[in-house]
Amino acid sequence: MNKKQGKQSIIFGAPPIITSTANIVGPMEGEGLLAGYFDQVMADNLNNQDSWEKCESYMLEWAIRKAVAKENSTIDTVDYVLAGDLLNQLMATHFALRSLGRPFLGLYGACSTLAEGMLLGAVLLDGGFANKVAVAVSSHHDTAERQYRFPTELGVQRPPISQWTVTGAAAVVLAYGGSGPRVTAATIGKIIDMGIKDPNAMGPAMAPAAVDTLWQHIQDTGRQPAYYDLIVTGDLGVVGKTLVIQLMQEKGLDISQNYEDCGCMIYREDQDAHAGASGCASSGVVFTGYLYQMLQARKLQKILVIGTGSLHSPISYQQKESIPCIAHAVAVEI
Amino acid sequence: MNKKQGKQSIIFGAPPIITSTANIVGPMEGEGLLAGYFDQVMADNLNNQDSWEKCESYMLEWAIRKAVAKENSTIDTVDYVLAGDLLNQLMATHFALRSLGRPFLGLYGACSTLAEGMLLGAVLLDGGFANKVAVAVSSHHDTAERQYRFPTELGVQRPPISQWTVTGAAAVVLAYGGSGPRVTAATIGKIIDMGIKDPNAMGPAMAPAAVDTLWQHIQDTGRQPAYYDLIVTGDLGVVGKTLVIQLMQEKGLDISQNYEDCGCMIYREDQDAHAGASGCASSGVVFTGYLYQMLQARKLQKILVIGTGSLHSPISYQQKESIPCIAHAVAVEI
Repeated sequence: MNKKQGKQSIIFGAPPIITSTANIVGPMEGEGLLAGYFDQVMADNLNNQDSWEKCESYMLEWAIRKAVAKENSTIDTVDYVLAGDLLNQLMATHFALRSLGRPFLGLYGACSTLAEGMLLGAVLLDGGFANKVAVAVSSHHDTAERQYRFPTELGVQRPPISQWTVTGAAAVVLAYGGSGPRVTAATIGKIIDMGIKDPNAMGPAMAPAAVDTLWQHIQDTGRQPAYYDLIVTGDLGVVGKTLVIQLMQEKGLDISQNYEDCGCMIYREDQDAHAGASGCASSGVVFTGYLYQMLQARKLQKILVIGTGSLHSPISYQQKESIPCIAHAVAVEI
Repeated sequence: MNKKQGKQSIIFGAPPIITSTANIVGPMEGEGLLAGYFDQVMADNLNNQDSWEKCESYMLEWAIRKAVAKENSTIDTVDYVLAGDLLNQLMATHFALRSLGRPFLGLYGACSTLAEGMLLGAVLLDGGFANKVAVAVSSHHDTAERQYRFPTELGVQRPPISQWTVTGAAAVVLAYGGSGPRVTAATIGKIIDMGIKDPNAMGPAMAPAAVDTLWQHIQDTGRQPAYYDLIVTGDLGVVGKTLVIQLMQEKGLDISQNYEDCGCMIYREDQDAHAGASGCASSGVVFTGYLYQMLQARKLQKILVIGTGSLHSPISYQQKESIPCIAHAVAVEI
């Protein structure tokens, strides 16, 4: 049976069930708009660890173990873990997985990693290659800041267009059996680069990639935007979100009524996050918390999660390259 | 149909065919033991590019285009590209894929990335999610050296246990139809860390991960080592290779007659590479060149390729962490 649909999409034959999710965040996220939707809020960004990197690794491991515990299961029932983060050589992920001791596939899609992992996890299940898969991502404001931008000690002033990396981790368990929202379709993105070179302008850089994938999803599946109760992008922030609405309008489609961006859903305006949230954990904690609970409560029944990734590196920026971006879409329905 | 076998393995229902492979290397690799098995040897490590990073990106794109051209096809027939490299944020891969314009999934498994990509590519094909997939990896001596170790200008003396990162890229096309070697089985590895902290000792650090995956492959599939004409690991080098033979001997299995390491197959002894080759391109150029040609000529009929990855980062080393390692195995038969 050919489950490929159109040019870049997949329609799952027996849509895998998201049996459980979990998340953990830092104090700033815990004081934000989604305060009631997190499993754990850390008291500070270090959480008794030796370094921010170790704290990020701790969060990732915690989220996976919590997601498995929430479905009254044990970690050894997970066939494979698919995970990734923003750090060089996926440092947070690798040290978390060392402790977990489960078979593991490392992914890098920057902030699109949760969507990439969920679609590959669903592929493993629907293809008969696994019975249960865990997908997890993390990001940490302080590890990202010193890796991508400036030494944190400098206290550099951030431009208004910049976004704030979410400190948090999120995990999703995919399986058959039980009830819950299902992964019904996915669209795998292409790299889109419109020439933006300012690494502070990640939202505007990623917006065309989100639009490219959303447009292709519509072409491939025949599902119009109105098919979904909600379309969410990962972390475009205020500027990127506005751009997506405009770019879709230019294609003759109005998504202003059922489109939101996870980057705009996490922080209150007075939290000084500027253009919004970013990081793998941006779509991660919104999906595993607020959105998953809305799906379970049937307040949302069909959503399209478009993970968006800014794939630049500090070296590519120093070499004066523009920012390659990608977006992967995953349809979740109950 | 459940294609999961044992704890960590997959037996493919309709094993996907490796319809084409291609590779490109630097001058040092071109003067080595496998000189006759490369599609292209660059005159120098820059190849008229502005930077070593751009040269690495050039190689990756070249290898994918060449692999597709060798099967008399065009790049738009490739449904998805799965690729990765050693650079922070997969810089070489992302800029290559920007030019290629194909749907893309980014992987990070350090030097195990080719095996990870081949097994996920086979999963996409065997599960009915794709008709043709390209898998590609790259590494570059000079980009790796300045990222992982010292500024290249320093001219630091290398210890005898250290390995030399291969400058090269390799691509594999997986599809149905046509003839060629098939991916029949795979084993997904766990992270193994025996406490080695010296980033020059990657071979010894990775050896236990290779043994863990090989042992699990035997348990899961019932295929004894003698089932394979050749078992190859990715880039353990002389010291790691000896360790693998010893560790398997301790488990009561003699693999000394049909086991080799790609890291020991690339450079001549007088090329000053010390303990051998490393990098994503180590198993990459050996598999896509020498091994693929041996399979096509039926001089080898059943091989097990164990991609081995050292998952440390410069930051984890500076934070005095030991080296987490992984190995994924892919069985290729004709």
